[in-house]
Amino acid sequence: MAARAELITIGDEILYGQTLDTNSHWISGELDALGIKVIRRTTIPDHEDIILKAFEEAQGRADMVLITGGLGPTNDDLTKPCLCKFFGTSLAMNNDVLDEIKTLFAHAGRELSELSKLQAMQPIGSKSISNRVGTAPGIWMERDNTVFISMPGVPHEMKTMMSERILPLLKDRFIKGHLRHKFLRTAGIPESRLAEKIKPWEDQLPSHIKLAYLPTLGQVKLRLTSSGMDAALVEKELEQEAERCRPLLEKYIYATENIELEHRVGQLLREQDKTLAIAESCTGGFLSHLITSIPGSSDYFMGSFVPYSNKMKEQLVHIKHETLREFGAVSEQVVLELAQNVRDVFGTSIGISISGIAGPTGGSEEKPVGTVWIAYADGEKQEAKKFVFTKDRKLNIQFSAMAALNMLRIQLE
Amino acid sequence: MAARAELITIGDEILYGQTLDTNSHWISGELDALGIKVIRRTTIPDHEDIILKAFEEAQGRADMVLITGGLGPTNDDLTKPCLCKFFGTSLAMNNDVLDEIKTLFAHAGRELSELSKLQAMQPIGSKSISNRVGTAPGIWMERDNTVFISMPGVPHEMKTMMSERILPLLKDRFIKGHLRHKFLRTAGIPESRLAEKIKPWEDQLPSHIKLAYLPTLGQVKLRLTSSGMDAALVEKELEQEAERCRPLLEKYIYATENIELEHRVGQLLREQDKTLAIAESCTGGFLSHLITSIPGSSDYFMGSFVPYSNKMKEQLVHIKHETLREFGAVSEQVVLELAQNVRDVFGTSIGISISGIAGPTGGSEEKPVGTVWIAYADGEKQEAKKFVFTKDRKLNIQFSAMAALNMLRIQLE
Repeated sequence: MAARAELITIGDEILYGQTLDTNSHWISGELDALGIKVIRRTTIPDHEDIILKAFEEAQGRADMVLITGGLGPTNDDLTKPCLCKFFGTSLAMNNDVLDEIKTLFAHAGRELSELSKLQAMQPIGSKSISNRVGTAPGIWMERDNTVFISMPGVPHEMKTMMSERILPLLKDRFIKGHLRHKFLRTAGIPESRLAEKIKPWEDQLPSHIKLAYLPTLGQVKLRLTSSGMDAALVEKELEQEAERCRPLLEKYIYATENIELEHRVGQLLREQDKTLAIAESCTGGFLSHLITSIPGSSDYFMGSFVPYSNKMKEQLVHIKHETLREFGAVSEQVVLELAQNVRDVFGTSIGISISGIAGPTGGSEEKPVGTVWIAYADGEKQEAKKFVFTKDRKLNIQFSAMAALNMLRIQLE
Repeated sequence: MAARAELITIGDEILYGQTLDTNSHWISGELDALGIKVIRRTTIPDHEDIILKAFEEAQGRADMVLITGGLGPTNDDLTKPCLCKFFGTSLAMNNDVLDEIKTLFAHAGRELSELSKLQAMQPIGSKSISNRVGTAPGIWMERDNTVFISMPGVPHEMKTMMSERILPLLKDRFIKGHLRHKFLRTAGIPESRLAEKIKPWEDQLPSHIKLAYLPTLGQVKLRLTSSGMDAALVEKELEQEAERCRPLLEKYIYATENIELEHRVGQLLREQDKTLAIAESCTGGFLSHLITSIPGSSDYFMGSFVPYSNKMKEQLVHIKHETLREFGAVSEQVVLELAQNVRDVFGTSIGISISGIAGPTGGSEEKPVGTVWIAYADGEKQEAKKFVFTKDRKLNIQFSAMAALNMLRIQLE
């Protein structure tokens, strides 16, 4: 069985919503990659009784307890006094740690303050863990087979200490088997319909393989998880199950690794040596933003127009005045012209266009808010599709961009 | 005494570090803004015994327990069965909820699946909370004076439900007196420098007025909070304190209400009857996206170009070949030409341009990754500024767009 970890985050500023806790997420990912199972994360205030109670509860459940925050030298930093109380010990000056802090200050050309010297006071019986980039060392203590590890809350100090010192120690101590994940990334199918489609496969999954549905905007991520002593065997089994699932979802699967849709589209464009230009109206630049969030996208993305007014649709993307007048900007005819013309103007292999009513106003009975037309053109083929999304402006923008990415992906595949 | 809240997040994907939990942070901030004290946040796996134990422990400590996740229709979604067990009740079809789900599907032109119907199964004795943007409704149940509220884990569904339905209910139930906030939204000054500037004012603030620094990307939001039985009096006092702070920050303050910078820019353009066009290269459409995220932005935003390649900068925005060759695309000369020409092409009052090196590659000794030039032109004035941001692509894109918005705002003011 995988070793179990609990994370305890100490700090009022996180509970009040003033500091976003990114530490827990990062630590979870690192432990997971090692095959250590995080069974609980708790955030508690700077309050002695609550901290001591949290230590006690965690010890009953976990093999290791990783604590961040409350490790500074000021009065509201309670982690060290609480560890002393919990372990029935007290603080004493640790001269090795003091030397490290002196070196750090000397290196930075700063004078060592009394407050900073206090950082070298360590619980008697604890192991101190060097902090190469800050003054508060980590602390490692053990009781009844549970390891307690206290780290600073400053993200880059915690990450450096964890990567260089703590993860190797945890690996030596706790890792026997190997935990592995396999991903199926899907787009264009809602969670409920997806679940129906894969039910026969899900029902036959061996009980030691766990399946999770992770929905995001316009997508569902499927994650298979298993563990065992033979990593290659675990991976092979997950691979086989993923292969069994594939035919049930076919074109809805855009990747069998954990990547975003805009990343997949970039891979396909690059592989096929194709270039892309975009004319996006109601999405106002968001599709281009997604495409260009991928490093290296300048290799295949030539650029885009956001012709937000009708006049600009005529003038810049050469949409015929009659087409606009006869069918309106949100129409099959206009998006097809837009996709073809943006492709011509930029001289790319592919043109994509979007025109719709993002809302909250501008809708009509015939074309309600949320109506969006998306088109694809590559010189040989062309395709236009109509969608009706929501009443919410931001969601309509995001859903439209996702739908356009997915249309492009399916055409490229 | 302030009402106490606990947050319980259910989901293996968060414990495994695969999904960053931004919900807890957002909920913490919203509750804090209402004057509700968050005393603990716990993340637990999709496991019945653990969920039930967490419910029980939370009930002993808090007036309200807010639960996210595990509310979907699939087998790994355990929140509803656990709530039933905890409250000694069972699920039954709620026809009002079923009607809402049917309407949602009808609007999207999709067929209602059996699994989606299951979303309408609600614990007997619970109050269902409408989900305007998804199929899983929220659940409100009470026991021994503790309210349990279950919400979907999908961030936009949770936020919409919480903002529109749950926060008003919590306010009615738990908030006595009148809690009021006053905001000073600032841009272009880092938190530490801002804190130094306002220290004399902060030191004299009466103790019943609470000041919070809420930093976001390139901005710091200052929030003053106070409460009392006489709402007008509370508001007046906050107003006075905000006025005392203003001269210390001057042009760094862009609004004294809680609005985003792109919203403020929109207000200014509208008031002055001016129109805007953008040529953005390294930000790839993100600035246009921010501008067009504001409803009604089509009144002042005419459109934009994303000339991602140099060829397109020449061809579409008529940047001189010599300018590009002599100074490079990331230069004062090129952004000035871009801002002027995009203004001409779109026929707007103002042109804004951005060109930079987002990274991770493409940097040089002279122009490292993170170097960004931004320009403004309005026919009379023109201005170009150089920034050096970070090594991170996504951050550089966001910082650049923020800096451009702030430059435009200062020019308009």
